[in-house]
Amino acid sequence: MDRIPILKLGNLLLVTIQVDMHDQLAMTLQDDLTQQIVRTRARGVLIDISSLEIVDSFIGRMLANIAAMSRVLDAETVVVGMRPSVAITLVELGLSLPGVRTALNVDKGMSLLQSSAYIDGNADAAFPQI
Amino acid sequence: MDRIPILKLGNLLLVTIQVDMHDQLAMTLQDDLTQQIVRTRARGVLIDISSLEIVDSFIGRMLANIAAMSRVLDAETVVVGMRPSVAITLVELGLSLPGVRTALNVDKGMSLLQSSAYIDGNADAAFPQI
Repeated sequence: MDRIPILKLGNLLLVTIQVDMHDQLAMTLQDDLTQQIVRTRARGVLIDISSLEIVDSFIGRMLANIAAMSRVLDAETVVVGMRPSVAITLVELGLSLPGVRTALNVDKGMSLLQSSAYIDGNADAAFPQI
Repeated sequence: MDRIPILKLGNLLLVTIQVDMHDQLAMTLQDDLTQQIVRTRARGVLIDISSLEIVDSFIGRMLANIAAMSRVLDAETVVVGMRPSVAITLVELGLSLPGVRTALNVDKGMSLLQSSAYIDGNADAAFPQI
């Protein structure tokens, strides 16, 4: 497993994280994802973490970095599929995933991005910061 | 890694295979997928194999089984993202993936299911215009 596949769904990109992340894999994912955003002109990125049993500070930072990188490339990031136990652990660890939007599942994440002004091409209307 | 996540996209299910399959994982996937088809009333299944560097007879049989199981549950299966080298190896091995439909990528797989008679009436819910 040298890289995580990035799937194109219309003008969104979908990343499903199924394996334990390590430094090199996270770097490769950031690299691939930014290149894909530019190449496919994607307006949104969905990151599914339903397989992850724990989100530690490393993963949290990676998600925040991806969201920040996507944002400067004019694509919005939504993290979907978080397990309830992960949410509990996150808060207990004091991690709030700053700058990262979340949705319950892929469908709801898509709706969120769809309803957003970003997908309509109106870049002036910014997302409310959560 | 005890199970492969199954993502719901409208009335489709998306499975991304990223790890080496073994007997137990394949059994769990078949079990989960059939349950999800019934629970979500999905009409189509997309299986992304873009991460797989080789598709041997075991994987080929698993894909054929999944397609057959889905079919009797009234859901069509499309395998997407096959690497060129995998296609070459498949043919050299004499495997033709009988009963399995393929498409170049997830977008084209969705279009195939959309244009198929299997997905009718409710196509807008499955394929949001984004």
